[in-house]
Amino acid sequence: MVLKELAFTEYTSPDAFTEIHKPVPAEAPVTIRVNGKELVTLLCTPENLKELALGFLYLEGFISGMDDVLLLRVCDEEREIEARLREEVSLPAHQVIVSGCGKGLTYMDVSKGDYQFGPGPCLAPQQIFALMEELYRKALHYRVAGGIHTSGISDGKGLLWVAEDIGRHNTLDKLKGYCLLKGIPTEGKLILTTGRISSEMLAKAARMGVPFIVSRTSATVLAVELARKWGITLVGYARGGGFLIYSGVNRIEGWQG
Amino acid sequence: MVLKELAFTEYTSPDAFTEIHKPVPAEAPVTIRVNGKELVTLLCTPENLKELALGFLYLEGFISGMDDVLLLRVCDEEREIEARLREEVSLPAHQVIVSGCGKGLTYMDVSKGDYQFGPGPCLAPQQIFALMEELYRKALHYRVAGGIHTSGISDGKGLLWVAEDIGRHNTLDKLKGYCLLKGIPTEGKLILTTGRISSEMLAKAARMGVPFIVSRTSATVLAVELARKWGITLVGYARGGGFLIYSGVNRIEGWQG
Repeated sequence: MVLKELAFTEYTSPDAFTEIHKPVPAEAPVTIRVNGKELVTLLCTPENLKELALGFLYLEGFISGMDDVLLLRVCDEEREIEARLREEVSLPAHQVIVSGCGKGLTYMDVSKGDYQFGPGPCLAPQQIFALMEELYRKALHYRVAGGIHTSGISDGKGLLWVAEDIGRHNTLDKLKGYCLLKGIPTEGKLILTTGRISSEMLAKAARMGVPFIVSRTSATVLAVELARKWGITLVGYARGGGFLIYSGVNRIEGWQG
Repeated sequence: MVLKELAFTEYTSPDAFTEIHKPVPAEAPVTIRVNGKELVTLLCTPENLKELALGFLYLEGFISGMDDVLLLRVCDEEREIEARLREEVSLPAHQVIVSGCGKGLTYMDVSKGDYQFGPGPCLAPQQIFALMEELYRKALHYRVAGGIHTSGISDGKGLLWVAEDIGRHNTLDKLKGYCLLKGIPTEGKLILTTGRISSEMLAKAARMGVPFIVSRTSATVLAVELARKWGITLVGYARGGGFLIYSGVNRIEGWQG
């Protein structure tokens, strides 16, 4: 259940109260158990849970590929994901509550990341707008209910897959999980997202090998600094026919440095 | 440093690239140390860090008031908050990565909350709009740079204090921390916020004793269900002269059930 129709009241003008029915985004606690032990509980949009769990395990460094996964299944009315991994995992002692538009937990130490991206993909502004339009078209739950984020992974020509979730970070986990399941390399691809780019969003993309990120909204200083250090193109506020290029403008066609 | 002016490139129309300077929201890792031991690292807007730490400790259940706090200071160029508490704390084994527009970590078990709010404050729609307008007026960093959330606490007549942070949840922590420092009870007050109301936002408000929450944006099903269970008025999409009342419509003047 991604959306649930609720009955509530709408106020539109002085003393105009109307009883309405509208779909509202669900939010569910989903526990990932690894080799019988509880690893973590994610609050998320309960859809594509296999993708979410796989991507989370990969992007947080618990697995390095599908070879590490012996079994993965969604149990207990979609409230638990059971993973059997080749090796035992344990939570690092150092945990960071990440911010962004919400807060978040990561075990990655963002500042220690050591990525260096080559020239990689180069896109014309019109391609960027076309991909963002495709993203909105495919944001099915958002268009019905609002209050949900959408991210897509692209080869530059179109979107390969789109994930929706109330958590920005969860959408990236789901994208990576999908690509792991399908055997699609994420290296050199692009990410388009409605969510804000804070440091851990950038770090998740970097770990996916993605050198080009486009957001409908803003970026933080730390994300911009990391993007510049790692050679990632970071585009923000891509809407209404314009955008801001915080980093890696050399990958935008038409720019002359 | 809440905002930092960066130089980057703006694209506005075919082949129109402009070098611009604009302030961008900062994002900093701030570590809370309790009695000499690292408790957690928050990624946040580095402003009002005492308030942030105090509110976090209270709303996550590590302290029950100022009597538990022997010392609190911000050290190391605002990258570390040192708290000396009367009692030792330890991280619960059960951790939940909360979602929302980002993800988050909480040690509260939301479903176990057992709040029951009485009749409490009753507001006219015009008061709600006036408070939201005051919130926007006081959202100084947002108006300059965007990409940041604002929340305010109110007695119904005006805003007592306003907090800004890239993390929605951090804004509530800061509000509670401010009120703890100033000896202002939060019970029976209202919260106005630009951020989405997911379950842990609602739970933080409930723990503050706040029976009335107004958001500029959306709510999740779980937040609505908890608000109904606990008797909290939850108003969403308060903008443009209208809003949605997900729960507790009896506290809105003019409504006739």
